[in-house]
This record gives sequence, C-alpha cells and structure tokens, in this order.
Amino acid sequence: MTVEQHRSQLDDRAIALHEQHRGKISIRLEAPLETRDDLSLAYSPGVAAPCREIVDAPSRLRDLTVAGRAVAVVTDGTAVLGLGDIGPKAAMPVMEGKAALFRRFGGLDAWPICLDASSPDEVVDAVRAIAPGFAGINLEDIAAPECFEIEERLQDLGIPVMHDDQHGTAVVLLAAMIGACELTGRKLSDLSVVIAGAGAAGTAIAKLLTCVGFDSNSCEPVRDIIVCDSRGIIHGERTNLSPEKRALLEYTNRGGREGSVHDALEGADVFVGVSRAGLLSAADVERMAPAPMLFPMANPDPEIDPGLAYAAGAAVVGTGRSDYPNQVNNVLAFPGIFRGAIEAGATAITPEMKVAAAYALARCVGKPTRDRVLPGPYDEGVSDAVADAVADAWRRGR
Amino acid sequence: MTVEQHRSQLDDRAIALHEQHRGKISIRLEAPLETRDDLSLAYSPGVAAPCREIVDAPSRLRDLTVAGRAVAVVTDGTAVLGLGDIGPKAAMPVMEGKAALFRRFGGLDAWPICLDASSPDEVVDAVRAIAPGFAGINLEDIAAPECFEIEERLQDLGIPVMHDDQHGTAVVLLAAMIGACELTGRKLSDLSVVIAGAGAAGTAIAKLLTCVGFDSNSCEPVRDIIVCDSRGIIHGERTNLSPEKRALLEYTNRGGREGSVHDALEGADVFVGVSRAGLLSAADVERMAPAPMLFPMANPDPEIDPGLAYAAGAAVVGTGRSDYPNQVNNVLAFPGIFRGAIEAGATAITPEMKVAAAYALARCVGKPTRDRVLPGPYDEGVSDAVADAVADAWRRGR
Repeated sequence: MTVEQHRSQLDDRAIALHEQHRGKISIRLEAPLETRDDLSLAYSPGVAAPCREIVDAPSRLRDLTVAGRAVAVVTDGTAVLGLGDIGPKAAMPVMEGKAALFRRFGGLDAWPICLDASSPDEVVDAVRAIAPGFAGINLEDIAAPECFEIEERLQDLGIPVMHDDQHGTAVVLLAAMIGACELTGRKLSDLSVVIAGAGAAGTAIAKLLTCVGFDSNSCEPVRDIIVCDSRGIIHGERTNLSPEKRALLEYTNRGGREGSVHDALEGADVFVGVSRAGLLSAADVERMAPAPMLFPMANPDPEIDPGLAYAAGAAVVGTGRSDYPNQVNNVLAFPGIFRGAIEAGATAITPEMKVAAAYALARCVGKPTRDRVLPGPYDEGVSDAVADAVADAWRRGR
Repeated sequence: MTVEQHRSQLDDRAIALHEQHRGKISIRLEAPLETRDDLSLAYSPGVAAPCREIVDAPSRLRDLTVAGRAVAVVTDGTAVLGLGDIGPKAAMPVMEGKAALFRRFGGLDAWPICLDASSPDEVVDAVRAIAPGFAGINLEDIAAPECFEIEERLQDLGIPVMHDDQHGTAVVLLAAMIGACELTGRKLSDLSVVIAGAGAAGTAIAKLLTCVGFDSNSCEPVRDIIVCDSRGIIHGERTNLSPEKRALLEYTNRGGREGSVHDALEGADVFVGVSRAGLLSAADVERMAPAPMLFPMANPDPEIDPGLAYAAGAAVVGTGRSDYPNQVNNVLAFPGIFRGAIEAGATAITPEMKVAAAYALARCVGKPTRDRVLPGPYDEGVSDAVADAVADAWRRGR
C-alpha cells in the first residue's frame, strides 16, 4: 500500500468514526433524574441551596458543580493541525478530540469552545467572559504571534491558562531530551541545540530549555540554542525579524551565528524540528556532533525520516508520529498538567511546573532505550505522575 | 414538620447530592480511545479528514461533531431563580442542572456557560463568539429588560436562540390554558386574562397569548389581556412606565382599565401570576368570573394557595410547584423545542413553533381533568411530541 492509499483509507475510517457517533463526546448525567424528588434536588427548588452557598463562599463552586474540573478547549481556528487558518467550525473535530483526551487521560471534563473572533482582543474578551464556569483554559491551535499575546493577557484570570501548542509540546520534548541525555551520557546544560521553526512551539521550546521566566534555581538551562526560521538562523543583523523573533535573541544564539539551518547544525548535539517535511538530509546529520539526538516533529511528515537519521549516525530520534518510536505527543503532558494545576488550586502554570512535568514524564520511562525515551500514552500512571509533580511544583512555589 | 424544617431538610439533601457527584454532569466518550489506532482516528492524524470536510461543506459540522446537538445554556447570573443578581459563579448549579435536563429529556448535549458580563453588549458579544460550536443557545436567568434586547439582537446567529424564562414558561402556560379551556368548555379567544408580573415571563406570556409576531393565521389570539406590575394595571396614563412596559400597551389593556391587580380581576376568566407569594386572597377569586382558572406561578410560594383558590370557586389551578397538580414546568417544553428546532435546521424559534409546542403538550394529556391539564415531566413521549410539532411548524413556515 502506498502512503497515499494508507492516508486515504485512514481518512475514510476517520470520517466513518465521526459519522457513526456524530462526534466523540456527549454529556453524561452524574446525578439521577428519574423521579420527581430527583428533579427537586438537582433542579428547582433544591438547586437554590448550592447557589446560596456559592454566593457566600465562591470557592464552593468547585465542590458543588462540574466547574471544579471543567476545562475549556479554546481556539479561534487560525492554526489547526497542519491545515492552517480553517476557522472555528472546521476546528471543531480537533477541539472535541482534545476534550475527549482530557476525559480519557486526565479525568477532567472539557468542552470545545470554537470562537468566531478576528483579533486577539476578541479572543481575550470571549475567554474572560466564559471563565467563571471553568477551572482551566486550554488554548489550542491559535496562530503565532497572536497566541503569545493572548496567553499572556489571560494570565490574570485566576485559573490556569495554557496554550498547549506551545507548552505541551515543549514539556514532552524536554522529557524526551532528558531521557536521551541519560541514554547517551550527556548533560542538558552541555548541549548545543538547533531549533528549526520559530512559531508557537519553537519559541516555547527555546524558552523552556533556557529556563526563561524561572523564579527558582530548579532548572538546568541549556546554554547554547540557535533558532532558525524559514530564512535561516535568527540573528541580530537580520532586518526582517518580528518583535517576537527578535525577543528570542535575548536567550538564544549568544555566539551571533549566521547562515542557514544547515550551517547551524555544524557540530550541534540536538536538532529540534517544528518546521516542514524533508528539511534535513543525511548530510545534515553527519555534520552534527557524534551520536546526535534528532527530534524532527513536523506533522504529518518529519523533517527527516528516522531510518535515514539513524543510518547517518543519530543516537536517538523522536518524531510527532504514532507509528514510529518516541512519539513526542502532547497527550503525555496536558491532561496531567491541567489536573495537577487544578487540584492544587494553581492560578497559573509556571515554568517550574512545566519542568516538573517533564522530569515526571522522563521518570515514567525507567531506564531509557533508543526506542523508548518517552512513555506511551497508554502506559499506566503517566497522567497521575505528571499531575502529582505539577501540583507539588505549584505548592513549592508558594 | 414545618415548612421551614422541610426546606432546611431539602437544602441539606440538595447540598449532599451536589457534593457527592461534584455537580450533575460530566463528559462521556462516544468514540473509543483504548488503542493507538483509536487515537489516530479520533485525534491526529485522522481528525484532519473531518476538518477538511467541514472546510468544504460547513453543514457537515452537524454530522461529524457534537456541535450538531450541542446547546449552550447561557446566563449572566442577573436573575437566578428567585435569588436575583447572584452573578455567574453562583448561577452555575442552575445552568448545570438545566444542561442535565437537556440530556435527560431532550437527548441533547448542553453545556453551562456562565458569563462574566456587565452589559447586554458583553453578553451578545460573548454568545456571538462561542456560537460556531453550538446548534442552539438557551438564554437563562437574565434580568428584564436586558433579556429582551439580548435575545432580539442574537436572532441573526443562524441557530435557534431562545430565552427560556420568557418563552418556555409562556409555552407551558398556554398548554395549561388550552387544557383548562377544554375542561371548562371555553375558547381561548373568548377569555379575559389578567397577568400579574411584567418581567420576562409576564411579557412573553402576553405576547404569545395575543399572537404577537405571527406570520400566519395559525394562532387563536386572546383579545382581552391586562398586565399588572407591582404598581397595578399597566395603562397609558401611567408616567412611570419603562419602554418595555409601554410596548405592552400595543396589545394589552385595550379598554384602558386603571387600578390595582384586584380591580383588574373583576370578572376575569384567568389569572396568570409571575409575581410574588400571597398576592391574591379568596376575595380576589370570588370577584373573578364563575369557575375561573388560576395559574399562580410565583416560586417557591404561589400568589395564592391552590386549596384556598379551589375553596373560593376556582375551576382549575396550576402552580410552579412540583408538589401540587398541574405544575407549569419549563422542562415540559424547552428540551423538545430545541430538539425539534435543531433537527429541522431552524434558524429561529418562531411564535408558530411555540404555539405548536403548546398544542402538542396539551394533546399529550388526552382528556384533561382538574388535576391534569398538563402532562408530567416523566410521561412517555412528551419531548418527542413537542419536538415533532416544533419541527413541523418550522417546515410549514418555510
């Protein structure tokens, strides 16, 4: 079967699945509604009692309603999967899928919120408006650079707000690097890293690896990072940099390197790809340091085929695909991150919590091997371990 | 047991129920998520296929996602039950309860949306923003007169938007009046009706009974209606009328009556109360026409005790309470109204659809008796009958 035939068959099966169930989630009753008495307790007149309790003590909202474990999966549909700006309606299958993953892997009740919004202001206003009924906000598939501003402006909501395309990816990638370092006898702080892609994920990865925003010394920063966009290395002499890309120079490319992504890879220990299929060749792997780590995560097709990378000398390869080993899959992180943050009553998801999540994920592996520097999504206890570590990190930071 | 003790025990049981389940609804998975293959169909990469289908044909949203049966239960918390302006968080138990009722009685998946909004503009903007992921919008517990403007401005959304406190109540009240007319050998169009209360429900009842906004001749209008507020009969000489109350005079109090609600009741066939406990006495019933119908629906305590009203000569009494016969309960109407409207692809809930819902409800009773002019919420087929009638009415109107 060719790749095209496989894709087409996958498409057909995916459509059939979505048609069969008319989506992937529904509402389940937790309280019985079978008698007149049930109605009088769950609805009028009994429901007035929990309302009054929340008037007197707003924190009771969490004990008495689904709001205590409810996450809004919010998008404006501007950067959906690899499909681009397809709008809020067409984004719905992804947001509903994410809500299903929150239930399955995090024990949380998430609802998809697909926003008809044409500016960061409108997204921010809408999220502020709906926030009272939620315990957390998962921003999803919002284009860069707007995603940075939107997430930043929502940090005062009093509940965790995280753009998963940035931080979920960064956390799992960090976990994979921790495992790969253990496997290859390296230290994170000694690594030289090249990131291809300066969008939401690339920027968040650069920040997390360099411990930007940390209050404490709990992070071991990677000191040598170069970020490349489609025009090559991001450096200070470039005149075409957006403010967001220029800000990257505060903590990346300290040596002022110039040139292409291929130039950047000269002697590098790690390649992190959040860019496009086929960016790298075997020659690129060969010009890296001996036994390099490669994380070509472009979807659906990676920057370099893992087999090709191994043949050219790679020590570890992780991709975004489920059909290769070491899938850098956000589902390893976001359910536990949100559950831990919500259970701890956190008002934000701090860099320390993200690093704690990454180390917890790495610990789930036990002794890493070339084909297993990350746990799998169905491994027992992954989400619990992440949740516990995230909650602990929040409590330590108070 | 005194009424106070009963209430306190009900409160305790209601709190216990809400604490036990931490609310009343949760998310259920409709699609399996137990294998890597499941993940690849429900989420990446398979989910791209339904996304692309919706890009090409937006109406496919309804077949492929929960949005096809999703209702947002939206409030700003300004008029919750009899508790008043308690804000969006304290309103959550009611909205979550309503979402549970949508599931139980309408087969729809509803999610509570409690808005932090301080003006009709903010409510309207928020609802517009979240609309792409929903098939219907149930506005709930929004104070008058803002509720009128908010509902009106949202009629161009392309999906049904209904403020249930207005129209749900009006539909069930009309159904009860249809049954009471059959029981007492009267015709709707011959009735003289006094409505006490000129808020959301009172206004909507006056409009529905007089067929305001009807395109067709499918409605038999009540010609003689007087609406009273806390200061008495609403008439043209009053100088203290809001624009909304003044608009009532276009179709009520055509005789220019003045005085108190007690004066208005002189010779009236029907009393409709959406005001306050204890407004009426036996003497008020006695000054009405022989064998009057009374619908004292104030919550939790009616305008007059049903026993007292019967003793004073009432032919039929219906209240808002579940512990008396003939409960005028919105749950009889809104689940079927929304399901019918959504199934028919209706872009609005027209007056014709509301009247059709009322007649469908009345037909569910069979032959009415004094203690049964309305079906009960658990009667078989009520919601289906309403949904079918509402869908038919929409299709007839096209």
